[in-house]
Amino acid sequence: MAAAAILPELATQVLIPVAAAVGIAFAVLQWVLVSKVRLTPERRADSGAAKSSGPSDYLIEEEEGLNDHNVVEKCAEIQSAISEGESEKSPGSVSTRATSFLFTEYKYVGLFMGIFAILIFLFLGSVEGFSTKSQPCHYSKDKTCKPALANAIFSTIAFVLGAVTSLVSGFLGMKIATYANARTTLEARKGVGKAFITAFRSGAVMGFLLAASGLLVLYIAINLFGIYYGDDWEGLFEAITGYGLGGSSMALFGRVGGGIYTKAADVGADLVGKVERNIPEDDPRNPAVIADNVGDNVGDIAGMGSDLFGSYAESSCAALVVASISSFGINHEFTPMVYPLLVSSVGIIACLITTLFATDFFEIKAVDEIEPALKKQLIISTVVMTIGIALISWLGLPYTFTIFNFGVQKTVQSWQLFLCVSVGLWAGLIIGFITEYYTSNAYSPVQDVADSCRTGAATNVIFGLALGYKSVIIPIFAIAFSIFLSFSLAAMYGVAVAALGMLSTIATGLAIDAYGPISDNAGGIAEMAGMSHRIRERTDALDAAGNTTAAIGKGFAIGSAALVSLALFGAFVSRAAISTVDVLTPKVFIGLIVGAMLPYWFSAMTMKSVGSAALKMVEEVRRQFNTISGIMEGTTKPDYATCVKISTDASIKEMIPPGALVMLTPLIVGILFGVETLSGVLAGALVSGVQIAISASNTGGAWDNAKKYIEAGASEHARTLGPKGSEPHKAAVIGDTIGDPLKDTSGPSLNILIKLMAVESLVFAPFFATHGGILFKWL
Amino acid sequence: MAAAAILPELATQVLIPVAAAVGIAFAVLQWVLVSKVRLTPERRADSGAAKSSGPSDYLIEEEEGLNDHNVVEKCAEIQSAISEGESEKSPGSVSTRATSFLFTEYKYVGLFMGIFAILIFLFLGSVEGFSTKSQPCHYSKDKTCKPALANAIFSTIAFVLGAVTSLVSGFLGMKIATYANARTTLEARKGVGKAFITAFRSGAVMGFLLAASGLLVLYIAINLFGIYYGDDWEGLFEAITGYGLGGSSMALFGRVGGGIYTKAADVGADLVGKVERNIPEDDPRNPAVIADNVGDNVGDIAGMGSDLFGSYAESSCAALVVASISSFGINHEFTPMVYPLLVSSVGIIACLITTLFATDFFEIKAVDEIEPALKKQLIISTVVMTIGIALISWLGLPYTFTIFNFGVQKTVQSWQLFLCVSVGLWAGLIIGFITEYYTSNAYSPVQDVADSCRTGAATNVIFGLALGYKSVIIPIFAIAFSIFLSFSLAAMYGVAVAALGMLSTIATGLAIDAYGPISDNAGGIAEMAGMSHRIRERTDALDAAGNTTAAIGKGFAIGSAALVSLALFGAFVSRAAISTVDVLTPKVFIGLIVGAMLPYWFSAMTMKSVGSAALKMVEEVRRQFNTISGIMEGTTKPDYATCVKISTDASIKEMIPPGALVMLTPLIVGILFGVETLSGVLAGALVSGVQIAISASNTGGAWDNAKKYIEAGASEHARTLGPKGSEPHKAAVIGDTIGDPLKDTSGPSLNILIKLMAVESLVFAPFFATHGGILFKWL
Repeated sequence: MAAAAILPELATQVLIPVAAAVGIAFAVLQWVLVSKVRLTPERRADSGAAKSSGPSDYLIEEEEGLNDHNVVEKCAEIQSAISEGESEKSPGSVSTRATSFLFTEYKYVGLFMGIFAILIFLFLGSVEGFSTKSQPCHYSKDKTCKPALANAIFSTIAFVLGAVTSLVSGFLGMKIATYANARTTLEARKGVGKAFITAFRSGAVMGFLLAASGLLVLYIAINLFGIYYGDDWEGLFEAITGYGLGGSSMALFGRVGGGIYTKAADVGADLVGKVERNIPEDDPRNPAVIADNVGDNVGDIAGMGSDLFGSYAESSCAALVVASISSFGINHEFTPMVYPLLVSSVGIIACLITTLFATDFFEIKAVDEIEPALKKQLIISTVVMTIGIALISWLGLPYTFTIFNFGVQKTVQSWQLFLCVSVGLWAGLIIGFITEYYTSNAYSPVQDVADSCRTGAATNVIFGLALGYKSVIIPIFAIAFSIFLSFSLAAMYGVAVAALGMLSTIATGLAIDAYGPISDNAGGIAEMAGMSHRIRERTDALDAAGNTTAAIGKGFAIGSAALVSLALFGAFVSRAAISTVDVLTPKVFIGLIVGAMLPYWFSAMTMKSVGSAALKMVEEVRRQFNTISGIMEGTTKPDYATCVKISTDASIKEMIPPGALVMLTPLIVGILFGVETLSGVLAGALVSGVQIAISASNTGGAWDNAKKYIEAGASEHARTLGPKGSEPHKAAVIGDTIGDPLKDTSGPSLNILIKLMAVESLVFAPFFATHGGILFKWL
Repeated sequence: MAAAAILPELATQVLIPVAAAVGIAFAVLQWVLVSKVRLTPERRADSGAAKSSGPSDYLIEEEEGLNDHNVVEKCAEIQSAISEGESEKSPGSVSTRATSFLFTEYKYVGLFMGIFAILIFLFLGSVEGFSTKSQPCHYSKDKTCKPALANAIFSTIAFVLGAVTSLVSGFLGMKIATYANARTTLEARKGVGKAFITAFRSGAVMGFLLAASGLLVLYIAINLFGIYYGDDWEGLFEAITGYGLGGSSMALFGRVGGGIYTKAADVGADLVGKVERNIPEDDPRNPAVIADNVGDNVGDIAGMGSDLFGSYAESSCAALVVASISSFGINHEFTPMVYPLLVSSVGIIACLITTLFATDFFEIKAVDEIEPALKKQLIISTVVMTIGIALISWLGLPYTFTIFNFGVQKTVQSWQLFLCVSVGLWAGLIIGFITEYYTSNAYSPVQDVADSCRTGAATNVIFGLALGYKSVIIPIFAIAFSIFLSFSLAAMYGVAVAALGMLSTIATGLAIDAYGPISDNAGGIAEMAGMSHRIRERTDALDAAGNTTAAIGKGFAIGSAALVSLALFGAFVSRAAISTVDVLTPKVFIGLIVGAMLPYWFSAMTMKSVGSAALKMVEEVRRQFNTISGIMEGTTKPDYATCVKISTDASIKEMIPPGALVMLTPLIVGILFGVETLSGVLAGALVSGVQIAISASNTGGAWDNAKKYIEAGASEHARTLGPKGSEPHKAAVIGDTIGDPLKDTSGPSLNILIKLMAVESLVFAPFFATHGGILFKWL
């Protein structure tokens, strides 16, 4: 083999945990900065006084309500109304409810995880009949490897570890978001720039915490597992794969459960409140308003955090498992072996630099600077990271090495791997921009959709669906190009690091993504606190940009999921000892066509769940308006708790069938039909699911922003369609409501579907290869 | 080789044309029976008199208006109003306009076909540099085969032949339908049973004419081409493949152009007429009403006829091309060689028997007997045909033979081929029933969708989309099972004959499918003629059943398209001399993911086209209502011609881009990326397109029938949602409008997309194999 990497093992062992620690420290710093915004009315008045004594602020002409004790008191009053007799008179009520929902969710999911952990242990242990003897290795027959039983035990541990990390990530994200919502609202009184920085910093807390802790846990696990595994790296990294499975399983339930929760509440609240009763969004008179706010936090924040953590964990695991049977693994070169972790480490530093551009180097002064600022984040992080990748590829890899490629070893050079990571990174940027183009109301696609509202809801829906379908084209070409390049250069390892490249700026991606729901809720609080129209306008502008960034975040999540799934699929195929997946065999082809159907089945379940739960919500909200007198006048408080309960019950009950579909399909197909058919299923689900996921997310985002475009009335054209309450606006609201489950339940869950089936197949590959395909064996 | 088939060549040569002739004669007989319904007022009055003098009719208590000269005269008057000064005072106006549109469409398509024919000649001729020398055969190197130039010439001729047959099929179908519409309306005065028989007979004319002429032309072409080709069967049947390409190319433009035409008119008419002006569907005051009626004929009838003819031609060609390199072809056994044609011949006879059950053996006496009668048609034809297949497999095949299977010959027995054809046939039945279950308002899925209208259009759309997604599951399992069985038993030949099995009852399938739009238009004429509420109720009942049968027809079209495409794909792969299509190669995988994207791209184009054209139509209709006084009062005739022109212009202009996407993709991919990537594209488009096609068709069908369910108010539940004009009904109308382009433009065009790309690849395979993949060669 050629020369080793420049970076010595010790340096690597230091670099990775240090980068993770820096990321965590930076997250804490951002948190401290956010927490400086005070929430209690008295201090807010103080801060207002302090403010007016220092009128040097550039934004002074935008300030208002800072000294208005009425507004501040009313805000506090409504906050306490929302918390509904709970002891603290803080805005903790949404947080408390969100926490309580998450605990309920985790209770059920925990049970499921427990059962699944036992399955992993039993299935993998049975591969060699629970023997405790070491076996000859799979790829290098002259060495001995740890027994399958060890693999079973450590895979199970890794699975639990991944699940817990994912759970903690989601939970912390939710905590941060609820902490930041009201603070963003209050800062909006001082101007759009202040509010933006508060929301963005809060997003950054989540982004860095998640990226850094994901890296750290993985790093620690590798080192701890290594104590037992010694030089059996093949076994070690196979066991580590359980980490990805755990992370993604949690993410599935988080996305689906959270998505059903939030959209049942949102759709229910909108249908009665906005359409029938003609009261504004987030009006405290709407009984479902609290459930809606809780939902934004548990669905969009906790769910999304778990999702991207899952992608990150899986792409790392996919790369590591392929690396372990490539020359790095066989020669026990630690630095190149953990090259995937090095890429992530550099990513944290690159994102840290990028964040400063949003929070410290520049300042937002007007509403129309928000979207460019967020876009700049994407560009800067990509450029900085490209340099970082070049550096780490030069330092962390030998100049020449071999990569395992379905039975043969393929020679690769370090600059080729640099290209693989970079192509993923830049494809992510392209997907981000295309998503922005199709979902931002600054461009013609959304404006055309808004314009079609002129002729009613039907044309709005037709145009919106067409937009979603069209928005698939360029991202797919970008993904296809990345796959082709990375696959050709470095086989499945190339695809895995391309996925990692796309996710290397995850901290920035998550920051701008989490920024969306935080702004959304800030607007909700402003409405509920009865703050002035101007402040609501500012939070609306933040929120409109947030819809676009949420769509961009989903674009990233889907794009990376496609690459990750392919890499996992490749790793599965290698581990199951298949060397070709030939479409021209009946076993594979039926897998392909059935796999392509699964995203539809899954979407049918989730859409129907949201629809049914929303119907129940509508009936409850109508009932309250009709039977509880004084709600509309604002003299009686609506019964928020019942609506929260409807969302909670629906999401817990309804997340089971789609979850089971995804988790059981690989098991059933693998056991009954064997690894060839399973390969077909994975490929089919991947190529079909990615399309529906992108189109669903973008259609939903476009409808939401078409509605906001009409509401904002910022252009001549927009004003001809508005104002709120006009016929075109009503049509736009219908589109927005339809888009809710598409963009926040079905769409983003689909990328978990394709990843999760792939990683599950990978974990169970030895079992399927040994005991699978019983139906064909029997025939 | 084992014993030959029982049926001697001479018998086969007699049997096929006789079956075709019987089919055509039967179609003519049905036409004569339909034409006995007189249209001129005087004679109608006569027939009324004749009727009342023979009161033995069972349906006498349902009769009304037969002697009401006012109704008859008003009808004639409105018909003449519609024909708008054209010389004949017959209901020919819709027919005239439809004819005129089809001629315009054919003019443009003809130009395109001419260019494409030249391309075929040039590309295929260039394979051996336009050499006129015979070459060693591809599969049996010891024989000499005709030069590539001959293949180029005959493929081009076959292409033109297929296009012309498809064109004539569509045109005749349209003529029959326009001929039958008014007659069905008039018969509805005598009762639902009479009207049903008229509509059904008219559908049967089209079904039998199309099935028989398709078979006859193919049979004649084989025999004529055979004069030149002699014993080079390989070359002969390769050239014949052009027939399938021609048929499907025409079908594409027919479906897309017709689909845009009809839905622009339909959506435009509904949005202003039903939603804004609150006038009923098909009201003669609506300026777009004529365009809508014309559209039903050119889109649903002519387009669908061309489509199913294309499927039939392609599955026959796919089977023949594989057979020519199997033992039948190598040993020159004529009877087993044309087994695919024998299956179709038997199919015509089986369908003939089946039709008698609807028209002669039983009689419809009440509205709720319509759907069961149509369902019985499906069951009877399947059962009769199964016996027919058994018989012809026993008579027409040697007991043992070999089939070409990607480079090797596979031994197959005749009973196995019987199973292949039967599994396709029965899978078609299952798809038909599942489609019925999801789109008929007699079952809970559509009723649930209707119920969701209670909370508005948004929930209606969410439930409808979920229904469409869900309806994919069982059809895909049915298709997967058929593919698995037929593929395992007899490789690609098995798949091709399974497709043929599904299409063997095409005459019945087309009859019940064409029945739908005929009933729809009959209802339109009843409304326009101001006929009584009771008659309109009868035609509505016919139409509701028609929506379901249209969805069933689309289900068949899509299911068979999936099988046909796979068979064509297999034939392409064989002809391009590829032996595996390995997903685990970058070339194939990028093809797969891009192929899976194409249906979305295509749908985006067609949906947007319908949306834009509908917007123009809405503006024109609004303009007429606002500027031409007296339209609403019925004192002034609206300007129908302008609306017709909008639809015509839109469809001609907008059918080009999606048409080009489908026709050019295989050429570009084949030339630039080569046959491996093209294989991936075909497989991806197939597995993804079939899902969207099924879900789009069923969602649209369900919305349409949910609306009809509310309008009909036939149950306690339905009445709580209605009546017409209620809020739930308005929500249902929005769903119906959204469903229009899904079910009549995008959905049904997608199955042509997947078939056409496959057959085109097959025709051009020798060219791609010789000159393709220049991009990779260059890299």
